[in-house]
Amino acid sequence: MKLMVINPNTTTSMTDAVVAAARTVARPDTTIVGGTPADGVAGVESHYEEAWGALGVIDQVRKGEEQGIDGYVVACFGDTGVPAARELANGPVVGMTEAALMTAALIAHRFTIVTLPRRTIAHSERVVQALGLGHRCTVRAVDVPVADLAEGSAHLAEVFAAEARREPDAEALILGCAGLTDLVGPLTARLGMPVIDGVTAAVPMVEGLIAQGLTASRVNTWRHP
Amino acid sequence: MKLMVINPNTTTSMTDAVVAAARTVARPDTTIVGGTPADGVAGVESHYEEAWGALGVIDQVRKGEEQGIDGYVVACFGDTGVPAARELANGPVVGMTEAALMTAALIAHRFTIVTLPRRTIAHSERVVQALGLGHRCTVRAVDVPVADLAEGSAHLAEVFAAEARREPDAEALILGCAGLTDLVGPLTARLGMPVIDGVTAAVPMVEGLIAQGLTASRVNTWRHP
Amino acid sequence: MKLMVINPNTTTSMTDAVVAAARTVARPDTTIVGGTPADGVAGVESHYEEAWGALGVIDQVRKGEEQGIDGYVVACFGDTGVPAARELANGPVVGMTEAALMTAALIAHRFTIVTLPRRTIAHSERVVQALGLGHRCTVRAVDVPVADLAEGSAHLAEVFAAEARREPDAEALILGCAGLTDLVGPLTARLGMPVIDGVTAAVPMVEGLIAQGLTASRVNTWRHP
Amino acid sequence: MKLMVINPNTTTSMTDAVVAAARTVARPDTTIVGGTPADGVAGVESHYEEAWGALGVIDQVRKGEEQGIDGYVVACFGDTGVPAARELANGPVVGMTEAALMTAALIAHRFTIVTLPRRTIAHSERVVQALGLGHRCTVRAVDVPVADLAEGSAHLAEVFAAEARREPDAEALILGCAGLTDLVGPLTARLGMPVIDGVTAAVPMVEGLIAQGLTASRVNTWRHP
Amino acid sequence: MKLMVINPNTTTSMTDAVVAAARTVARPDTTIVGGTPADGVAGVESHYEEAWGALGVIDQVRKGEEQGIDGYVVACFGDTGVPAARELANGPVVGMTEAALMTAALIAHRFTIVTLPRRTIAHSERVVQALGLGHRCTVRAVDVPVADLAEGSAHLAEVFAAEARREPDAEALILGCAGLTDLVGPLTARLGMPVIDGVTAAVPMVEGLIAQGLTASRVNTWRHP
Amino acid sequence: MKLMVINPNTTTSMTDAVVAAARTVARPDTTIVGGTPADGVAGVESHYEEAWGALGVIDQVRKGEEQGIDGYVVACFGDTGVPAARELANGPVVGMTEAALMTAALIAHRFTIVTLPRRTIAHSERVVQALGLGHRCTVRAVDVPVADLAEGSAHLAEVFAAEARREPDAEALILGCAGLTDLVGPLTARLGMPVIDGVTAAVPMVEGLIAQGLTASRVNTWRHP
Repeated sequence: MKLMVINPNTTTSMTDAVVAAARTVARPDTTIVGGTPADGVAGVESHYEEAWGALGVIDQVRKGEEQGIDGYVVACFGDTGVPAARELANGPVVGMTEAALMTAALIAHRFTIVTLPRRTIAHSERVVQALGLGHRCTVRAVDVPVADLAEGSAHLAEVFAAEARREPDAEALILGCAGLTDLVGPLTARLGMPVIDGVTAAVPMVEGLIAQGLTASRVNTWRHP
Repeated sequence: MKLMVINPNTTTSMTDAVVAAARTVARPDTTIVGGTPADGVAGVESHYEEAWGALGVIDQVRKGEEQGIDGYVVACFGDTGVPAARELANGPVVGMTEAALMTAALIAHRFTIVTLPRRTIAHSERVVQALGLGHRCTVRAVDVPVADLAEGSAHLAEVFAAEARREPDAEALILGCAGLTDLVGPLTARLGMPVIDGVTAAVPMVEGLIAQGLTASRVNTWRHP
Repeated sequence: MKLMVINPNTTTSMTDAVVAAARTVARPDTTIVGGTPADGVAGVESHYEEAWGALGVIDQVRKGEEQGIDGYVVACFGDTGVPAARELANGPVVGMTEAALMTAALIAHRFTIVTLPRRTIAHSERVVQALGLGHRCTVRAVDVPVADLAEGSAHLAEVFAAEARREPDAEALILGCAGLTDLVGPLTARLGMPVIDGVTAAVPMVEGLIAQGLTASRVNTWRHP
Repeated sequence: MKLMVINPNTTTSMTDAVVAAARTVARPDTTIVGGTPADGVAGVESHYEEAWGALGVIDQVRKGEEQGIDGYVVACFGDTGVPAARELANGPVVGMTEAALMTAALIAHRFTIVTLPRRTIAHSERVVQALGLGHRCTVRAVDVPVADLAEGSAHLAEVFAAEARREPDAEALILGCAGLTDLVGPLTARLGMPVIDGVTAAVPMVEGLIAQGLTASRVNTWRHP
Repeated sequence: MKLMVINPNTTTSMTDAVVAAARTVARPDTTIVGGTPADGVAGVESHYEEAWGALGVIDQVRKGEEQGIDGYVVACFGDTGVPAARELANGPVVGMTEAALMTAALIAHRFTIVTLPRRTIAHSERVVQALGLGHRCTVRAVDVPVADLAEGSAHLAEVFAAEARREPDAEALILGCAGLTDLVGPLTARLGMPVIDGVTAAVPMVEGLIAQGLTASRVNTWRHP
Repeated sequence: MKLMVINPNTTTSMTDAVVAAARTVARPDTTIVGGTPADGVAGVESHYEEAWGALGVIDQVRKGEEQGIDGYVVACFGDTGVPAARELANGPVVGMTEAALMTAALIAHRFTIVTLPRRTIAHSERVVQALGLGHRCTVRAVDVPVADLAEGSAHLAEVFAAEARREPDAEALILGCAGLTDLVGPLTARLGMPVIDGVTAAVPMVEGLIAQGLTASRVNTWRHP
């Protein structure tokens, strides 16, 4: 299988990071390629930037369809552009947020997302509500700009751990941004609970849909435009 | 990886059917074994039978742990015994119902479960409610006893299609019982929408959890007993 | 009327305690008998133990039906086995958790359950969600093993009161375990709010159903198996 | 115990009917008296009439407190005046709607209210929503004026049965108006499912609260005014 | 247009305050008159007082209809009497609570109501639940009697600000009582977030309904009695 | 006040229609201007087209801010681009869908949206869910392409009326697309219930927010990017 992990912003180091994360869990026979929009925004922290991010996702799916991509992971917390991508792609499309939430629901009764800027809490909650998981998932923020991840996220381990501990009922932690994969190990150790990265959660879901011959229903909502 | 697909009832032909279904989607390097309780009930259509089914699941997980099983699929619509299995198993446990619902949510805005006896509608709804998908999923029944599946399910294609068509907003169909995998093809053709079997949906989810090094959180709810 | 209060575990001192509690509120013409499974688990604190508890409930209902029992109270917080018991019994079956929640809803706008081990919070929430009372009820835990109740619960009054006071909107307290009846008086005095024991809440509900000639509907969900 | 069944309207034949219904299920040692407001409206079919009905309930609770009444049933579908009555009464107050809904939830997975004028559907739904039972209960109407009950309700059995049959998942029927007790028998026979009258459902709940020494919490919402 | 702002209690200084508030936002061609019941209660802090308040609202709508009033604002947090007023009035009726909540939802993702006595939290929550905004709105209280507003509310600014700050996710504040308009400015300055008074929120909504030629539907729920 | 009604697609006849509709309800001192993106899509019927529509909204808000616009109405059912517009505009932004839903909630207990292509049902439901009105509002479709509105919508009156009549509990109808204002009169007459156009519903809400000095909170979610 050939999967594309789409980074909706123009920062190629982020694309490299999510592609590397995806490869750690992919089947041996899966090829992972990255997709980075040529134009758009350097990061997605607002609804305004999400609008540009959605266009970036659309652009990359179009390129992917020409390249014979079998399935897509959208590597942006908040899953911007995922519905449009489903309409355009022939193969399945999975957002990192929905994948992380479903994964959490399989291994924890209650869980929490810790995202970066407080203003993006609403982006996460939009996906939580679309899936109906509000009774099991809370959303918190450490209020760090995404740009702080430029040199990796290891220096954020303590601030994430502190925020997660404020949620007394959480039994698993979802990392609320792409590019935080290197926090999985340190936070699992610190918190003693499963820590979930949405990109690595999404890859086996796309692979599984392809293995089952499934893609977005064309009956109504996600018909080709 | 070595996965066990647990049939919570004592009918070995059902075990054979779900193991065969699981193999159609498993990774090349995954071994699938079946688990059938020595004692219990021949089928699970009531809460009384679910209580026995849960014990059967527990029994098989115990055997599986001795055999070095890496992860489990519980092949009973309604996911009886799944929480107890999570407490006992070291690796991840996924129920066919939760897997089918999550898979449907990735490819359809609205979907419907068609289950067999009307009395089991509540069993499906219990899982729908635990996941919070009641705003996207309805549950219907064809009111056929599970025993009617003894010689395969192909003769049920028309009755399932008719029931699914009664749900005007459904964009995907979930088969509400184990052992209906041979309906996927005929119903996909008849209905023009994705048709989901929970066992084939669950296998890549278990594989994905293992690939990510994830299993049930031991913080509270699913601690080892 | 002849009612059986079923203790789903094998600890007969617990059975004695719940029978004694039940007698304090029963009608003068009601006979209360206790039911204790011969086999099973000594206490119910996990989903694994709940599976055994459900079998214990089933076993006692079978015995009760032979003895001409008119109705049943299941004395296990979390109401394990109640749906199966409804299918088997001819008379009504009421779980202590659902009874406590309904009673609380009649006398308080907001209320809280304080249960024992944190891992059982999910068991309480399952009943809260089945009834739809999540907007009025929270669930907390003091994280004391059930075994600590062996010599009564009076020594737990302060820890329960402290936990209840952490819920600033609670207007009533539900004791989240069987065998805590002797906490009702001390906690009512300490907290200045109603304190509800599920067993004493359930007895008049069973009596009332019998008085109305009502028992579980046999239309679908709780048909005899 | 001495209970008052309050009819919030001025029609004494309705009071007689609900008192008679209450007596059929009361404990032998319970005395039932009826309460009818001197002023107000002849029936409650609108929010305007509910406002007068609430005053009627308040008036009767005041009289009841002078007479040493131990507990109250408010016999108006929609439970008008119940919160105010809780604030004024020293003993417990139960509305016929909440009692019917709780009773239904103990014996049926799904149920339906059939009320009289369509305009009162919202009154029923208000109670359904306050209890959180919207996932298990629907509300329907036969659109007959309450005045049609003046000579009993037996002539309405067929129209109620027809309406109930339009709800394919209903496993129990709640009669959505006071004064319909004589429909319980005929409709149970016609529909083969439990049929619930809210007044008879409420009486044992009030008795049970009194037996447990419980009344409305005075912490916040229902403090004495 | 001619609008009446109805104060459901008998305190004319409160009527003066809400009329003055309404005038600050009304269209130039709108006339605002106040309505004060001749009889009833001096303030509305309990369900008992709400019952009297509803009658006061009804009384004033009757007077308003005689005077050719085009639309009504009910100036009581909790919107007592609004449904009855809709049935009686020919023009539109808007409660200050529903107007405040809708206004908040247009300018803030999450918001909080701060009301006065804790016992009225349930009154606010009733409106929050009727609109379905529980996922975006919390309700808090400063536990000050309404009578404390007799000489204005400026002295309450600090206590309101402190309570609002306890809600870390709130992005707007709703003042949970009529007569607090003079807190809007000071609290906006202190909190740095929008502060909403329900009376000023309701006036343009009534004006807008009249401009569109809309009033309460007479199909079912709010038919004339 | 100076308001801009933004048509997110490039069809200027649609802009003319929504501006004309807006003027019928605006205050005498309000100036309405239309906004049409120079680039984008001719209509919005898919998530893909919504992504372009959002960019069109952003583009027009930028132009509007230069022109000193005081507030905005986004005239696209589904409210695409509204959150981004809130972040960019200094004055308030109201979507036609949220405005229609709030207006409906003020005049009807239950209501229904009838939208055009079935694929856009999900777009409407997204707004219904964000507001929490799923318990009062259903969404239906007549499955007519938006392009059919090019020459007005009068020929659609019968098909809309027929669809609305399929919703037996609806007490008001929301027109689920911009440019249907000329259906309000004919459908009100045919259905005997209020018919709501989102653009005319939104104008007084924007005017009201401006009159109150309110705009999007800058605390978190809708901070300037």
